[in-house]
Amino acid sequence: MLARTPAPPYWAVIFSNQRSAADAAGYGVTAEQMVTLAAAQPGFLGAESARGADGFGITVSYWQSEADIAAWRAHAEHRVAIAAGFDRWYACFATRVAYVGRDHLWDKPASDAPGQG
Amino acid sequence: MLARTPAPPYWAVIFSNQRSAADAAGYGVTAEQMVTLAAAQPGFLGAESARGADGFGITVSYWQSEADIAAWRAHAEHRVAIAAGFDRWYACFATRVAYVGRDHLWDKPASDAPGQG
Repeated sequence: MLARTPAPPYWAVIFSNQRSAADAAGYGVTAEQMVTLAAAQPGFLGAESARGADGFGITVSYWQSEADIAAWRAHAEHRVAIAAGFDRWYACFATRVAYVGRDHLWDKPASDAPGQG
Repeated sequence: MLARTPAPPYWAVIFSNQRSAADAAGYGVTAEQMVTLAAAQPGFLGAESARGADGFGITVSYWQSEADIAAWRAHAEHRVAIAAGFDRWYACFATRVAYVGRDHLWDKPASDAPGQG
């Protein structure tokens, strides 16, 4: 689902990752907990997530400030999940912190939707 | 697959989108063509893409400069594909242009991989 972020500027954390084939125990529950927990943090503006059948996934979370991102990274429960990610869940990942200066959100006009009626 | 980007800073285009249920004709071929074409543009540093079974997808492309992004956006063949996206392929999407100041890429050490041998 698209994150309905406010007008820029804001910050993004792009988390790209490849799930390991082995040892997925606990992953789904923890991933959901982290989404809920992130959404409760100061400065959280939204998040988007997609994962394909090949196990490669991208989660982008949006934040008001770089300080909000640092605070979330340091959150105790998040740190436990990150450690499990290193240990058991990911074959590789990239975390990128980015400043969003420009965006464009587009919704198909309802009257223009194919097959609608 | 992770994009093995060079050291920051560089730029990212975060393209998040929801596919329409209807009228997918031509989508796969065009999407592949756009990846190949983007990779041939000046300043292209890599791209990552994931789409779930629900049709929500995220593609992040990485670029050396904001000017490279502007040139790619203006590319004639890309503009045709963008128009088709509006017309037929997407229910909604967001495009975000971001400056990546910090990143961290991590690969599981080979000796530490579960089930390896």
